[in-house]
Amino acid sequence: MSAQVLKVQPLTRTAFAPFGQVIETKGVQPYRINRGTTARFDDLARLELAQDGGTPLVSIFRGQPFVPPVAIRMVERHPLGSQAFMPLSGRPYMVVVAPAQGDGRPGAPLAFLARGDQGVNYSRGTWHHPLLALEGESDFLVIDRGGSGDGSDDNLEEHSYPGEGFVVEEIWTL
Amino acid sequence: MSAQVLKVQPLTRTAFAPFGQVIETKGVQPYRINRGTTARFDDLARLELAQDGGTPLVSIFRGQPFVPPVAIRMVERHPLGSQAFMPLSGRPYMVVVAPAQGDGRPGAPLAFLARGDQGVNYSRGTWHHPLLALEGESDFLVIDRGGSGDGSDDNLEEHSYPGEGFVVEEIWTL
Repeated sequence: MSAQVLKVQPLTRTAFAPFGQVIETKGVQPYRINRGTTARFDDLARLELAQDGGTPLVSIFRGQPFVPPVAIRMVERHPLGSQAFMPLSGRPYMVVVAPAQGDGRPGAPLAFLARGDQGVNYSRGTWHHPLLALEGESDFLVIDRGGSGDGSDDNLEEHSYPGEGFVVEEIWTL
Repeated sequence: MSAQVLKVQPLTRTAFAPFGQVIETKGVQPYRINRGTTARFDDLARLELAQDGGTPLVSIFRGQPFVPPVAIRMVERHPLGSQAFMPLSGRPYMVVVAPAQGDGRPGAPLAFLARGDQGVNYSRGTWHHPLLALEGESDFLVIDRGGSGDGSDDNLEEHSYPGEGFVVEEIWTL
């Protein structure tokens, strides 16, 4: 069986809502601080990091770029915590997530194209593909769960799709 | 009394250590994840956000640029939590901090020039000047304390320096 083709859709708050939050200023009303010199777009992600004694961890991920066709053969999830990615490069990237089915296993994935000024926060337990940078090596600030009780296996589940899985054949430019 | 001139120094991990952490990949050994496609520079900031039932808050700050001479007349601090800033624009910015004296009040400030790929995390209770973007309007991802018990006054102290305070007259380019 050949790979099923995945269409890529623009990343929007509404479309991504079942999987977590889009971290962006668009559509958010800021408030002024610092005597008016700074606009604060407040509280853009729902971090879930305290489960089982976890603590928030701040890291930088440097992703190698993927070039279409991009094969999507597996997804992973972190049952103990959320995971947020904010691009530092200004480059677009791809976000692939999958809804959990009744048995908890992932259904068919959805692919989103994120602009370089959009971050994402995967809700705790959300199936997603590992980082898919585009166009060039790209750094992301990552906020995820670390700390006590965090044997790495406890907070990572992987699922491989049968056969050839899925493929993103083309990515239009935003 | 005229303002005292502050010299600007490059932001380095060592020089900034009394005030918090520099969030950068330089000098950090990453480990490979995601089948080798991603390098993880792990755990770059010591977040202190749980005090008095606090929770981590992810926001975007959009700072208006300052142009020298920059007057430094006050500093502030957050007694209940750390505060991290990561530039999203790639532009340099200025970091001004002050050591606490024996009575807890801030001494003379120090000014650092941060590269666009360097973030900072102010340790809980560290005196610092509000955001000082440079060169153009600049966005920063901010991780600070929110949540229960957080009347905004509880987590904000301000201190005004007497007289004209301090001034950064020139900022060289990195």
